[in-house]
Amino acid sequence: MSHNLILYSYWRSSCSYRVRMALEYKALPYEVRPVHLVRDGGEQHKDSYRALNPMRQVPYLAHGDRGLAQSMAIVEYLDQVFPQQPLFPEDVYDRARVRQLCEMINTGMQPVQNLAVLQELGRRFDQDMDGKADWSRTFLAPGFAALEQVLVQEAGAFCFGDQVTAVDCFLSPQIYNADRFKLDMTPYPTVMRIHAALQALPWVKKAHPAAQVDAV
Amino acid sequence: MSHNLILYSYWRSSCSYRVRMALEYKALPYEVRPVHLVRDGGEQHKDSYRALNPMRQVPYLAHGDRGLAQSMAIVEYLDQVFPQQPLFPEDVYDRARVRQLCEMINTGMQPVQNLAVLQELGRRFDQDMDGKADWSRTFLAPGFAALEQVLVQEAGAFCFGDQVTAVDCFLSPQIYNADRFKLDMTPYPTVMRIHAALQALPWVKKAHPAAQVDAV
Repeated sequence: MSHNLILYSYWRSSCSYRVRMALEYKALPYEVRPVHLVRDGGEQHKDSYRALNPMRQVPYLAHGDRGLAQSMAIVEYLDQVFPQQPLFPEDVYDRARVRQLCEMINTGMQPVQNLAVLQELGRRFDQDMDGKADWSRTFLAPGFAALEQVLVQEAGAFCFGDQVTAVDCFLSPQIYNADRFKLDMTPYPTVMRIHAALQALPWVKKAHPAAQVDAV
Repeated sequence: MSHNLILYSYWRSSCSYRVRMALEYKALPYEVRPVHLVRDGGEQHKDSYRALNPMRQVPYLAHGDRGLAQSMAIVEYLDQVFPQQPLFPEDVYDRARVRQLCEMINTGMQPVQNLAVLQELGRRFDQDMDGKADWSRTFLAPGFAALEQVLVQEAGAFCFGDQVTAVDCFLSPQIYNADRFKLDMTPYPTVMRIHAALQALPWVKKAHPAAQVDAV
């Protein structure tokens, strides 16, 4: 299949940022179609978008007449269809450990601080941005502590050895969220060393929220 | 490697239930080591268990001297090491769609109603079991609605066509949780048809929470 890739994305969505990193690392051309998650009650709730992704979330990747939601599924798909600059190691157990690290962020950290949860905290418990940030820190701190503990063993220049893998595409976006919630990152030096190395790379800069066409 | 598989599991944990289903489907012998998530403040917080899994969650699979956390990573690992009774299709796009369906449950539904979140709702907002169940239903209902919409297109006898795949190992455990939270499942007839078909299978019965050695 050709490179006719369209990414439905929101600049500040950490899950969209993951997929942008994967696409940029592989140097794949793609068109971004912004979906504004807040304006007019959220464009993800409109019928036209729900027809694409019933979960009403970004990212969503269209590849020709194929379509996929869920950043983890998208990143693995891209890696199989476009094997240049691989994001997963060949060895079965190495591959599983990369997936495990991705899932620590994908299931253990991001979902409990995503937009839908923060909005529900506002509706149900009258939480303002400070309350929402405090809730988020409560879950992000043990998540990063666990990541730090595993990365001390697994990391080289990047999260899993000296090559970029899918985990790196999950790490920096989660730190972007942690920063929004004002989490103190000093207890996680390995995490932050890798994040700094990533942020210096040109392809990571292109994937950054601030570099997006829909950035405010 | 031999079949020396040890699963650290809690009977009522839906993520442990997923891995038990994968192991039972493949007819792999395994030893269960129960980790009681509630007793004594939670055995998952003890140093001995945190050394295995810093995320302090079940399941954790030991395979000889290898170890893995995160149900999605474990199920994919098992499928690669023990390819009998495959849980993922061969085709790259089919595989991605199975992963997408798994992740709809893995990231979109389970994490916002897991034990740590419910405990925090109690601590922070003084929520009792009714309040926690209502919170859970708020997220599970749109999750099942989205699943139903996708399954109407993807399902055959099971979630993805007529063969069992990894999604089926994620579906029934999530319905077990929904039942605990008293979610009305009548709006999701495709979901419930597949769940009923699964629950009738002997290998699924063996993986069910009620059949576990640590069940109360």
